[in-house]
Amino acid sequence: MWQQKTIQLRPRQRGFHLITAEILQQVPELSQFNVGLMHLLLQHTSASLTLNENADPSVRVDFERYFNTSVPENAPFYTHTYEGRDDMPAHLKSSLLGVSLTLPITAGQLNLGLWQGIYLCEHRNSGGSRQLVITLQGE
Amino acid sequence: MWQQKTIQLRPRQRGFHLITAEILQQVPELSQFNVGLMHLLLQHTSASLTLNENADPSVRVDFERYFNTSVPENAPFYTHTYEGRDDMPAHLKSSLLGVSLTLPITAGQLNLGLWQGIYLCEHRNSGGSRQLVITLQGE
Amino acid sequence: MWQQKTIQLRPRQRGFHLITAEILQQVPELSQFNVGLMHLLLQHTSASLTLNENADPSVRVDFERYFNTSVPENAPFYTHTYEGRDDMPAHLKSSLLGVSLTLPITAGQLNLGLWQGIYLCEHRNSGGSRQLVITLQGE
Repeated sequence: MWQQKTIQLRPRQRGFHLITAEILQQVPELSQFNVGLMHLLLQHTSASLTLNENADPSVRVDFERYFNTSVPENAPFYTHTYEGRDDMPAHLKSSLLGVSLTLPITAGQLNLGLWQGIYLCEHRNSGGSRQLVITLQGE
Repeated sequence: MWQQKTIQLRPRQRGFHLITAEILQQVPELSQFNVGLMHLLLQHTSASLTLNENADPSVRVDFERYFNTSVPENAPFYTHTYEGRDDMPAHLKSSLLGVSLTLPITAGQLNLGLWQGIYLCEHRNSGGSRQLVITLQGE
Repeated sequence: MWQQKTIQLRPRQRGFHLITAEILQQVPELSQFNVGLMHLLLQHTSASLTLNENADPSVRVDFERYFNTSVPENAPFYTHTYEGRDDMPAHLKSSLLGVSLTLPITAGQLNLGLWQGIYLCEHRNSGGSRQLVITLQGE
């Protein structure tokens, strides 16, 4: 059995945001799958998806701080600079973290670890609404 | 055809460990699939999975050294510090490397490159046993 | 429905290369899938695959520059040095970016974002031809 849909995520500030609930709300179809996989593709090159701690917001603060340090704006070697100083770092962060997740489904629910949540990583200053293609498969 | 199971990996020291054999030992079901995919989800936020060289252990030594340098403990900007100085770096490394792999199955076996093996990347000083959800699908 | 094949990519220089067209040319089977997923595994440990901007080549120039800076050759702490100074950095870059992609198929085509393309990230000075296992599934 296959289900596929495209959803819009509400716009968020630059930073790391827990979006597990926003996604689950938009895929009630999940409950039909006894076993399967949910695949997510964020259709952008300046934001990303990752799994990480779903509890203390300070973890997400430190993600933003770490990536701003390890992927600096205004690096002297950047050549792609005409889309804003947040643009090239956003492309690099997007590939370091990735734009796609595949997650197991068990008994109609995502089978994540207790502390795992889905992050939308917004790397632009004004990224706007982001679009996600969700593909569910299983039986 | 779908098969899904949860397995425990034996505890390992902080560092990068080749676990291809330990996983394969626990999924004899693989031999039933002529063509398909094996999906692995590590249900944790302070360890990760990656594919890399399965031969010389010095590669795995250098992985540990590199990630300890690029994701330092005690960075002055960390706010999430109360779970130990190895905790926040472990979360960051987990997202840089990822907690999930999808691997092709061909003729009842994983179809990896000759030099590819599955690494468990243990980022905590005392991570304990780690849990993996394995989903096999194919025909 | 499942389809699986192994293809060779033509050799490329060290750097980041847009290969969406080269891949699509070799999977005419894609048009048979109304909904599904395409999985790619690069069977190597010193190159990688990522999705990023498919337009301005300056983005790919900056990827090469960034990764050469953040994963240096000749780091004093490397122990795995006998395969050339580009070898250990190539392994690290390969795991930072990953060797596998899973992409949605919709109406016989890849359903990527408008600006997304598939990059082959060649991290060796003379990597030669790279091999890709492509697994298509869907209905």
